[in-house]
Amino acid sequence: MIRRLSSADSGFAATLDALLHFDHSTDDAIEQTVAEILKRVRTEGDAAVLEFTRRFDQLDAGTMAELELPRSELRRALDGLPAAQRSALEAAAKRVSDYHERQKLESWSFTEADGTRLGQKVTALDRVGLYVPGGKAAYPSSVLMNALPAKVAGVNELIMVVPTPRGEKNALVLAAACLAGVDRVFTIGGAQAVAALAYGTQTIPQVDKIVGPGNAYVAAAKRRVFGTVGIDMVAGPSEVLIIADASANPDWVAIDLFAQAEHDELAQSILLSPDADFIARVAASIEKLLPTMPRREVIAASLKGRGALIHVADFDEACALANRIAPEHLELAVADPAPLAEKIRHAGAIFVGHYASESLGDYCAGPNHVLPTSRSARFSSPLGVYDFQKRSSLIEVSQAGAQTLGPIAATLAHGEGLTAHARAAELRIKP
Amino acid sequence: MIRRLSSADSGFAATLDALLHFDHSTDDAIEQTVAEILKRVRTEGDAAVLEFTRRFDQLDAGTMAELELPRSELRRALDGLPAAQRSALEAAAKRVSDYHERQKLESWSFTEADGTRLGQKVTALDRVGLYVPGGKAAYPSSVLMNALPAKVAGVNELIMVVPTPRGEKNALVLAAACLAGVDRVFTIGGAQAVAALAYGTQTIPQVDKIVGPGNAYVAAAKRRVFGTVGIDMVAGPSEVLIIADASANPDWVAIDLFAQAEHDELAQSILLSPDADFIARVAASIEKLLPTMPRREVIAASLKGRGALIHVADFDEACALANRIAPEHLELAVADPAPLAEKIRHAGAIFVGHYASESLGDYCAGPNHVLPTSRSARFSSPLGVYDFQKRSSLIEVSQAGAQTLGPIAATLAHGEGLTAHARAAELRIKP
Repeated sequence: MIRRLSSADSGFAATLDALLHFDHSTDDAIEQTVAEILKRVRTEGDAAVLEFTRRFDQLDAGTMAELELPRSELRRALDGLPAAQRSALEAAAKRVSDYHERQKLESWSFTEADGTRLGQKVTALDRVGLYVPGGKAAYPSSVLMNALPAKVAGVNELIMVVPTPRGEKNALVLAAACLAGVDRVFTIGGAQAVAALAYGTQTIPQVDKIVGPGNAYVAAAKRRVFGTVGIDMVAGPSEVLIIADASANPDWVAIDLFAQAEHDELAQSILLSPDADFIARVAASIEKLLPTMPRREVIAASLKGRGALIHVADFDEACALANRIAPEHLELAVADPAPLAEKIRHAGAIFVGHYASESLGDYCAGPNHVLPTSRSARFSSPLGVYDFQKRSSLIEVSQAGAQTLGPIAATLAHGEGLTAHARAAELRIKP
Repeated sequence: MIRRLSSADSGFAATLDALLHFDHSTDDAIEQTVAEILKRVRTEGDAAVLEFTRRFDQLDAGTMAELELPRSELRRALDGLPAAQRSALEAAAKRVSDYHERQKLESWSFTEADGTRLGQKVTALDRVGLYVPGGKAAYPSSVLMNALPAKVAGVNELIMVVPTPRGEKNALVLAAACLAGVDRVFTIGGAQAVAALAYGTQTIPQVDKIVGPGNAYVAAAKRRVFGTVGIDMVAGPSEVLIIADASANPDWVAIDLFAQAEHDELAQSILLSPDADFIARVAASIEKLLPTMPRREVIAASLKGRGALIHVADFDEACALANRIAPEHLELAVADPAPLAEKIRHAGAIFVGHYASESLGDYCAGPNHVLPTSRSARFSSPLGVYDFQKRSSLIEVSQAGAQTLGPIAATLAHGEGLTAHARAAELRIKP
């Protein structure tokens, strides 16, 4: 069912590397298709988007305007939710907004003794595009997690695109869009939607950044428009790493491994424990609980293909492995998690203690569920308000300041053979 | 020499768009070469790097260790500098470090009434690679600007790569590396150096992020390894936009336009002014001063091909155009710059007042000179300490907190058809 490893096994490092490896290589056929779609949308605008939407989504519209959902339709979707679902969505949105308010960057500056003033001015992006997948992978929680940080940042216009093949709409997604304050919604998807947002068309305004998950075509399109617009990380399969000791409930640990595995067969669930008996209890819980899971086939395939229960020497080794794995989600299901949390340097989110199940973080704890995957937590961060703000350097030089800075700049510029740079500095020096 | 436009011209918007347009499209031959180099280095390690270094740099080494420069050689380069150059470099390094110290992100957390604690833990990247071009584009100032933010962030190991074709080393670059605290230096370059840093070889450890400028091969390689490691923005040609009124010195403005143009023929220098007489005076200064510039041919080609002096209706229109252009560098050379600075939303760096020449910022004012080009200031920021730090979400849920959060998460998870997610939340709810 799920492989059992020990860090003391010979060849453990290589086995772990192979287990963690995920092939990000791109598909040439997809790349070519996407390149062609981008080119057509760039040059033909609305007409190309309409044509691709007809072809790929079997959705026949005469004009782009027909593919825009009025705000009233979003409102109706929200009003139509069962009360429990609506209040859960509202509670989640409030907690996510409140947490993200704390991420806002502020402008700052300081003035030196000679009157020169330096700083950074922080501003929000003007307009952001939010890609939301259609069909089964359409998650309202994902709409909240992507849209709310943008709104908290102060983004003026948030444009959502969501494919609705054959006109099938997802009421929960539209309700979440309403709640999150999405400004405009177009029912388009795929590379053509990414292209429309990146380049702009007659109807769809060009955005400054595109965020949100999508299939291989969407990911390829986002990579290609990067530079023309900003993009978020292109995510790999989701992962959880759980460090647990005998104080943990093996059923809870098993279900948390399942929760990751149920996403898809490539999702990765790994347990590290210094306690061999505890690992055996988790294995027993897995056997016991798996049949009760509606998505047991996906879970079983994921656990078999990419999961592992790993016996480690001690917590120090567990933390060292966690830092090497740099997991998207890390659970510290141990009696005394604080010293472990201190040692963790690389993880998208750290869930501390037995009650911090990943699923609470996925929906409503407050922090974002868009997290760096595939070891990218070594160098990147959860999606946040800071992804929808940017900085401009402020450089105000006083006349006195120019006398100090000018000779330094001129010396260095001459050293680099850039005479105009040097002259620009020298002209500001009083004779 | 340099085109003269007016915002009142018919077709001005289209003319400006054409002027700003820069083709980022990639070259298929370069892409193929780079893909092959990356693959070879990934599978063969040091041997492939040595082979490519022999082929492209005419540098014949038997082992990778021979291509590593000892710290003592960097020290000798620094000690060998003329005193004026050394003290200028030291003064610049100190100012850049001091400014960047203010950019450090700090961890934060807060505890809710029910004991649930949320926050973000900020850590530095472990290991960073710094690409430095060889030959004429090797700028010591660029070494400082890329290396110092990493060191201020607390990056543990900074590995520089710099090609030295036929063994030719640049003493200023090595001196800057010494001053900036670069930990290791390998004299390799091109896509093979990017690959070595991204994947690691027997000798060169894998880094977490690669920064620094390079040629089209380096840029293509960086794009391709993105995801395996982080990268900084792939920069386009450098640009300056100057907004000036009659209070500005036309010679200073002309020289500042030159300073941008002298980088290369694709660099872009644009002046906006509401004062037609002043524009004429700048044009006269250009004519007068150009012959005095050693790099006058490059400057003339850049001004002719991509430069413009643009008459605008007023400052409001100038600021609106600046926000549309989102220039890398923006100079506000006007009598009262503060109200204009307020209106600017999109620019890499804003130089305020007559004494703030871009060249002071390029070398020693303190802010970084690695700035977003080609309108990417709409969505990105100067290189900074924050590029060498990342955040991990902290989610510590109390038993009481799990009772509040559990039902919300379970309701939303059931709505998304993710039963294991729901069960993970429900198991933590006390019956």
